[in-house]
Amino acid sequence: MNKAKVTAPEGVPYVVIERDFDAPKDKVFTAMTRPELVAKWWVGPGYKVRVDKLEARDGGAWKFVQTDEKGQEWSFHGSYHTVSPDMIIQTFEFDGLPEPGHVALEKMTLTEKDGRTRMRVNATYMTQEDRDGMMASGMEGGMQNTYDQLDKVLADMAAMA
Amino acid sequence: MNKAKVTAPEGVPYVVIERDFDAPKDKVFTAMTRPELVAKWWVGPGYKVRVDKLEARDGGAWKFVQTDEKGQEWSFHGSYHTVSPDMIIQTFEFDGLPEPGHVALEKMTLTEKDGRTRMRVNATYMTQEDRDGMMASGMEGGMQNTYDQLDKVLADMAAMA
Repeated sequence: MNKAKVTAPEGVPYVVIERDFDAPKDKVFTAMTRPELVAKWWVGPGYKVRVDKLEARDGGAWKFVQTDEKGQEWSFHGSYHTVSPDMIIQTFEFDGLPEPGHVALEKMTLTEKDGRTRMRVNATYMTQEDRDGMMASGMEGGMQNTYDQLDKVLADMAAMA
Repeated sequence: MNKAKVTAPEGVPYVVIERDFDAPKDKVFTAMTRPELVAKWWVGPGYKVRVDKLEARDGGAWKFVQTDEKGQEWSFHGSYHTVSPDMIIQTFEFDGLPEPGHVALEKMTLTEKDGRTRMRVNATYMTQEDRDGMMASGMEGGMQNTYDQLDKVLADMAAMA
């Protein structure tokens, strides 16, 4: 079972995430950039996701809205700086904070070896407090869950190929 | 004479820039978001700028190309995360580096007092090396110069109002 390794180094406003996937890079990239596929895996126990916007290109924007069984909604949005199968660079903001403007810069690289793909995300925060707040929010557990769902989407894609 | 104060704190990947302008906030915002005005001040001794793209809205993109008298060109581009008269959050990349992907996240706030405007920019880099490289590139001198040109644009706008 693949598992995400999340590192939050002391004293610098970064989070590093590494995760392997049992699928080639182009499949992982496709699962991350097609709205109908993201809708299947950006989810967790008791909540779904509605992909309001996913313009997977340099200068595009994205907005994902998670919804629970009671109809509560919370959303995330950002802009794409770079989108290629090797590298996605984007901004990321959780829209539920008391004030807007707490934005992260995320750089994701995908590298393939022997048909498997290693994802590496470097997330950079505007303040140490923003980084620590993100870590304290339970993002790590939520992320483990979503990547497990992504594994299933990738398995389905392989079965259909 | 107003002057930009540039701070690069030790051990964290940030640059902070503060600059006052003798103009109200809406004028400063306008001068920063209209292509024909940016073309007048994003310049320096011996080089001009061509504004290839300036979509001043959440989820828009921008690209500015500087050109010197010999016809040499170098460019910068990014995506807008937030655009409002109080706050612009954007990504920033110099396209002349040996490898792409060295992107900064810039948060600019404008606050007005007694008809004058204080600009504060927090620039965040993905690595300490990226931050130090930007400082070593002479960006501070170039910036002082462009903000002096912006002063002139603001004075012209006031004269025309």
